[in-house]
This record gives sequence, structure tokens and C-alpha cells, in this order.
Amino acid sequence: MSRSIRVAACSPDVRVGELSSNLERIRDAVSAAASAGARLIVLPELATSGYVFRDQDEARAVAMTRGDERWSMIQDALPADAVAVVGYCERDGSDLFNTAAVLTRTTRIGDYRKSHLWGAERSIFQSGDSAGAVFDTAVGRLGVAICYDNEFPEVPRKIALAGAELLALPVNWPAVPRPEGERPPETIQAMAAARSSRLATVIADRSGTERGVEWTEGTTIIDEDGWIAAEPADGAAIATLTLRDMGDKSLPPHNDLFVDRRPDLY
Amino acid sequence: MSRSIRVAACSPDVRVGELSSNLERIRDAVSAAASAGARLIVLPELATSGYVFRDQDEARAVAMTRGDERWSMIQDALPADAVAVVGYCERDGSDLFNTAAVLTRTTRIGDYRKSHLWGAERSIFQSGDSAGAVFDTAVGRLGVAICYDNEFPEVPRKIALAGAELLALPVNWPAVPRPEGERPPETIQAMAAARSSRLATVIADRSGTERGVEWTEGTTIIDEDGWIAAEPADGAAIATLTLRDMGDKSLPPHNDLFVDRRPDLY
Repeated sequence: MSRSIRVAACSPDVRVGELSSNLERIRDAVSAAASAGARLIVLPELATSGYVFRDQDEARAVAMTRGDERWSMIQDALPADAVAVVGYCERDGSDLFNTAAVLTRTTRIGDYRKSHLWGAERSIFQSGDSAGAVFDTAVGRLGVAICYDNEFPEVPRKIALAGAELLALPVNWPAVPRPEGERPPETIQAMAAARSSRLATVIADRSGTERGVEWTEGTTIIDEDGWIAAEPADGAAIATLTLRDMGDKSLPPHNDLFVDRRPDLY
Repeated sequence: MSRSIRVAACSPDVRVGELSSNLERIRDAVSAAASAGARLIVLPELATSGYVFRDQDEARAVAMTRGDERWSMIQDALPADAVAVVGYCERDGSDLFNTAAVLTRTTRIGDYRKSHLWGAERSIFQSGDSAGAVFDTAVGRLGVAICYDNEFPEVPRKIALAGAELLALPVNWPAVPRPEGERPPETIQAMAAARSSRLATVIADRSGTERGVEWTEGTTIIDEDGWIAAEPADGAAIATLTLRDMGDKSLPPHNDLFVDRRPDLY
């Protein structure tokens, strides 16, 4: 048995420090993805704020709380049966976090705070206290991780073992060297993780450059066998994924990706 | 700081059930790789016996003990400073194991028994009781896993965390469907695992077919950044790998592949 779900990974034109106009562009991207039939819509890491902050003060100026009234701009653009995952700069008291909000039209399902901080992020953000998270949503049991999190094989594995049916992965991947003709290394890692755990993965990356940082433009949808289901066109990747029944990790006739694990030996 | 090591992954013409002639072909492959300067020489899984056994009796007929005198055929072909990793069908009392021997000219460094059994292997072999293994050798601290073992991300990770400087991976990969232009999925998983843990990986696969099973012909050398260093020509892949100092997992200026792990959260 299997089911289909239409998913989108959006890469709107995020501009560092421009919270209001970023929210408008996210809203427009969500509307367009919803019109194209997507019911899971993933936006990049720190999509509301941009990434390359000069200092913590600049990040604080574009941070949002979970209760910020402006979240409704994005939520109102969602159909009733859709879920959006949106990276943002979260303010909680005096602390800042690199967080992904999981939203529906009427509900804030939850928030996940990145727990593997890249580069200079430690000078801006506190670390989250879970390695990825899994939320029950209208589109299924949804895993969420952020960028560098997914380069630790423990993270997508843990999310899959927690019963996630697919993974939303907001990222800001700075371009790194790679041999000609090769995919970005982070994409290869996500393909491998997807296949190892039969965990379809929806990756929303940035495009262009920001303050001298060139983005990988790795927005990609990976199916549950680890293959590329869609790459971006017009700022979004959209695909209809076929997902086997939740928890079906069988490899007939003899094997099973999860049953064959040897947790006693790890 | 870094050092270089020349490695070979050999894919001799293994024939199921033909122990004596397989040993000769392994010896010749080891000699050729040594002549080409290789100091780590990896042979496929079950290279002495072939893979597609009709039943356990057939496997038992071509099994070897660790003390078998014929191991000297291979050892005598090794230069004094070289290490070979050879997959074989091991007999220990009444039990059979899918094992890799780690050999020098004068010493049997150790044996690793596959612990994640694929397909019908359970009807032939007992399972090993460790998830990969690490041996101190003349070419460095050497990880060993066998085929399906490496598709569990826990295994290469555990080997790397145990201090392996590189991974020898004997395999027999049956060809599976993949989109046109894509690498074999097992290669993608090995590239990702290599990059995640900075663990260069030397993969020796079969070629051709055996009793209707088509092999992937995935013999490949992967460097410690996860990129392809060599693919086979004339039955072997040979490359000179540059390895950073043992245990150096740093990603300057801010990160480190191992220090950034959050084992408290996994």
C-alpha cells in the first residue's frame, strides 16, 4: 500500500534584514505552491530574516517570537489541509534560535530549533535541545531538521526511527568546492540518508548570493528511495511523492531496512 | 599535516565454487596491485568462494578456516609493508561466516565477520557480533565492513569514531534499478558516509554475472571528502589517497565533524 502527496520546496528571494518584505515574498511563494497543488510547502532556513548577520543585534532586529501576529500572513495563504515549514530567526526572551515553524492555516503545530550550529552561528544563536523533531500533521508524520543537522547521519536516522514519513529540511547551504559534474555534497548526503531510512526529503535552499556568500542553490525533492524527484524551476521544486505505508521498511523477499539494524552493536 | 597512501580495490574474475583457481586469481591480483605500488589491497566479499551458493553444503565445500595453509598463497604475494583485505567463506567448527581476513606477508592481523546479512545469506551464514571492526596495521588504523553493513549509517560512523583512518569495504553488490546517469545507490551511500566522517573508503566489488545475478561493478575508491578518487580499469581501481592526520575532523574556522556531534541528543 502507498499514498501520494504533492510537496513543494520554495526558494523565494530572501534579503537579509528585510523582515517585512521577506514575509511578503514567503506568502507569495506559499500561495503559488498551494495553487500548484502542494500540501507540504517548505521554505529555507532563516527565510524571514536572511542568514549573513553582521552581529547579534542585527539578527535580533529581525527576530520573531512564536506569538508574532505577522505569522498570519503566511498562515492565511495556506489551504486548510496544507502544512508549511518556515525557517525563521526566533526570539525567546533574550535568546535567539535558528528555528523552523510548522504551520497550518489555523494552528501552529510546533517549532524546531537547530541543534548543530554551523560557522559563526554560535555567536548569534543558542542551540536547540533535540536532534531534529517529528510532528503529527495533516500531511503525515513530519520530520524537521535544519541544514547542518542533516550532515550528521544520526539525525535523519533518528527522525526516521521516530516514525517520520517524510523530512522537511530548510537549509542555507554556502557553496563549497566540488568536482565538475558532481551534485553538492549535502545533496549526496541527503540522498544517502533518504535511501538508508526510506525517508523522502524536501530541501529548500537559498539562491544567488548574500553579502559575499554564494548559495549552493540546492533546492531539491528526494524520493523515499533516495533519488531526485524534482529540482527547482521558477523558484520552487514541486513533485508528487509516493510514500509506502508508514513504517514499511521492507526489502522483499528477505530484508528490512529497520529490522536488519543491529542496535545492540552500535 | 597529512600523509599519502596508495590503495587498490581489485575485482578478479571470481567463479562460484572454484576455491583453488579463485585463490590463484586473487594472488595474481594482489601481485599486480603491489607492483603498481598499492600498500592497501582490497578484494571483494567472498572472493575465494563466489557468492550465489545453491545451499549451505555448497558453501561449506569451499569454506576455509583461519588456519588454512593456502592463505600463504596470498600472503606471499604481499610486500612486507602491505596489507590485504580478502573476503572469504569462513568455517569455524560447524558454523560458516561471511568474513574478511586482514593479512600481511607474515601476519594474520585479524578477521571481521559480517553482521548485517543480505538476502538469503541467513540460510548459509551465522552473523558476526560486531558492527564493522578496526585493526591497527602498517598502513594505519584500518576499518573493515562488508557490503550491506555499510548501508547502515551507524556502521561507518562507528568505525570512524573508533579512530579508523580509512575503510576497506569488500562487497558483492547485486545490480539494482537506478535512474539513468546516477551512480549505484550503494556508492552514493558510501560517498556520504565517507564525507560525514572524513573516512576514505576502498570498495572492491564483483564484475560480470554469477548464476543470473548481475553485479553492480561498483569497485571504487572514495577519498576522505567523499569524492571518487578512482574507478576500475583492467580489473582494479588504484589511487593515491591523501589522508589528514588521524583524528583531524576539523572544518575551519568554526566547525569539526566530530566535536559538533551531539551524542547526548541521539
